[in-house]
Amino acid sequence: MPELRLNVITREWVIIATERAKRPRDFRNNKERPHRPEYLSTCPFCPGNEHKTPAERFRVVQGDGWRIRVVANKFPALSIEGEKKRLSDGIRRTIAGVGIHEVMVETPVHNLATALQPLSHLEDLIRVYKARFIEANQDPRTEHTIIFKNYGEGAGTSLEHPHSQIIATPVVPVQFRDRVQAALHYFDDTGECLVCSVLKKDSEDGSRVILDTEHFMTFIPYAALSPFHTWLFPKRHSASFASVTEEELKDLALHLKNILSKFHYGLDDPDYNYVIRSSRPQDNANVYCHWYLSIVPRITMAAGFELGSGMFINSSLPEKNAEYLRSIKTE
Amino acid sequence: MPELRLNVITREWVIIATERAKRPRDFRNNKERPHRPEYLSTCPFCPGNEHKTPAERFRVVQGDGWRIRVVANKFPALSIEGEKKRLSDGIRRTIAGVGIHEVMVETPVHNLATALQPLSHLEDLIRVYKARFIEANQDPRTEHTIIFKNYGEGAGTSLEHPHSQIIATPVVPVQFRDRVQAALHYFDDTGECLVCSVLKKDSEDGSRVILDTEHFMTFIPYAALSPFHTWLFPKRHSASFASVTEEELKDLALHLKNILSKFHYGLDDPDYNYVIRSSRPQDNANVYCHWYLSIVPRITMAAGFELGSGMFINSSLPEKNAEYLRSIKTE
Repeated sequence: MPELRLNVITREWVIIATERAKRPRDFRNNKERPHRPEYLSTCPFCPGNEHKTPAERFRVVQGDGWRIRVVANKFPALSIEGEKKRLSDGIRRTIAGVGIHEVMVETPVHNLATALQPLSHLEDLIRVYKARFIEANQDPRTEHTIIFKNYGEGAGTSLEHPHSQIIATPVVPVQFRDRVQAALHYFDDTGECLVCSVLKKDSEDGSRVILDTEHFMTFIPYAALSPFHTWLFPKRHSASFASVTEEELKDLALHLKNILSKFHYGLDDPDYNYVIRSSRPQDNANVYCHWYLSIVPRITMAAGFELGSGMFINSSLPEKNAEYLRSIKTE
Repeated sequence: MPELRLNVITREWVIIATERAKRPRDFRNNKERPHRPEYLSTCPFCPGNEHKTPAERFRVVQGDGWRIRVVANKFPALSIEGEKKRLSDGIRRTIAGVGIHEVMVETPVHNLATALQPLSHLEDLIRVYKARFIEANQDPRTEHTIIFKNYGEGAGTSLEHPHSQIIATPVVPVQFRDRVQAALHYFDDTGECLVCSVLKKDSEDGSRVILDTEHFMTFIPYAALSPFHTWLFPKRHSASFASVTEEELKDLALHLKNILSKFHYGLDDPDYNYVIRSSRPQDNANVYCHWYLSIVPRITMAAGFELGSGMFINSSLPEKNAEYLRSIKTE
């Protein structure tokens, strides 16, 4: 019998469709990746081609060169120049598309997938995430900031060279506001943070936990929206990613490397997206919001039902998938 | 300069990213479809293989055979048997996965894409949609019903034979409730139906209209979430698709054939999803809800930003795309 599970954080009902359930290993990626060379002379992110990217905004130096490089996006979704003007015409609402859109080139090595980067390198990457996140929020036009990564064509990128992105928008996305509302609703009822409560409950339960350390817990949510949808929750209550400490940051890098490696080896290098869902630095003291990182391997596809209802059909059991990932050895 | 447009019906902000804007014809499908035969002996939906599908629930007869056939889904997302039981355990909420999941085989001809079906056949198909929609809502466990179609692998189907689907869920999807809320909010402010207002405004404007007849208007929304995202709005205010009259139904078939043909010829047969967004038949008298049909060609891909914000980046101009579709001749 299928079951509907409520994701209390996103407020989405997910259909866990056991009748079409597959074994965890059936979700392994069966697409061959094209050969990726260590260096590609035509790649704008490879060393030596720095002039092919728009203005550099930040770098982590290494000798004469760089280890991580942040540049403006060549085809930005939002324009860095301009005023945040609003237009209201009858029922129409328009805002000038001003904001920040940067690409973070994660490594000089063209074929060094994030999952395979050394731990210390991932720590550096997260330090860069933090620095750019804080910087983006200093722009008075910024109302919300998303840090995300698209890995593979099925996750919406055609650029092979490992990179992440940051977009700062001049509006608060409705989705974010709705989730804040749900968190506030829960806080009204209980006096507790919703994410802290889910963390406690899932830690006690244990069946969907993949890695549990001092500062973070990696687990598959009870109502995972798709197979291997995974959450990385910080244990200390804090609304903004900007507040992550140096010690926490190292633990986060460990969790990120761990889960991406488990995907790499256990699911044969699937395409995925991840995103940091966070309040702004200035909202860090908020008692009912709690930042986290969400990863969605692009294993199944949202189709007409998902589009038309906003609900998801997950043809796998979150508990079985967590068990499978726990069993995967990484280097 | 990019611009953010608010979709007043979905309440989503869409980034119209003109800096990366392409010409309408650049969105043409460049994937070759595999050859589709008229009849495929291994296809469970082809005539002669009726025993390969689960129980037949409805058919439109033609001679000794059928023209349209409705069957239970072989791998249903929801189970037709069982009681709607709720489970509440701390912060967990679960509902038994009961509901209806049917497949509507649109034609006996394996390779007759919906866009190419004769108009009279599409009228029949919409009559079947209506009949099954009303039937699904007679089940006391049904709280919401979605009729949808996935066309092509990029839209989430691997079955070539033309088919649509209906799913009746034991909960009201959050997305639907949020939109009802937005519509109610607008009604509170103005005493008018939001969809009726958008229809009036867009009809007067005309720049995004593709087809405008007595009963329906096909147009690209002001804040289209992706290139060629298209809406078919009924002109008569009615909350439920179930109330569509025989005359309206014929006009709807004309609009559906028209837009799908324009996609077929103008965009080289792209993958697409469409969905009917409707209140239940018993809620038809509702003054602020208004049913409609939404079509999304799967031309671009939702990636990390969309996942993390719920906002969309549309790299095309809705006005230009509508102009292009108006120029496309269909048979």
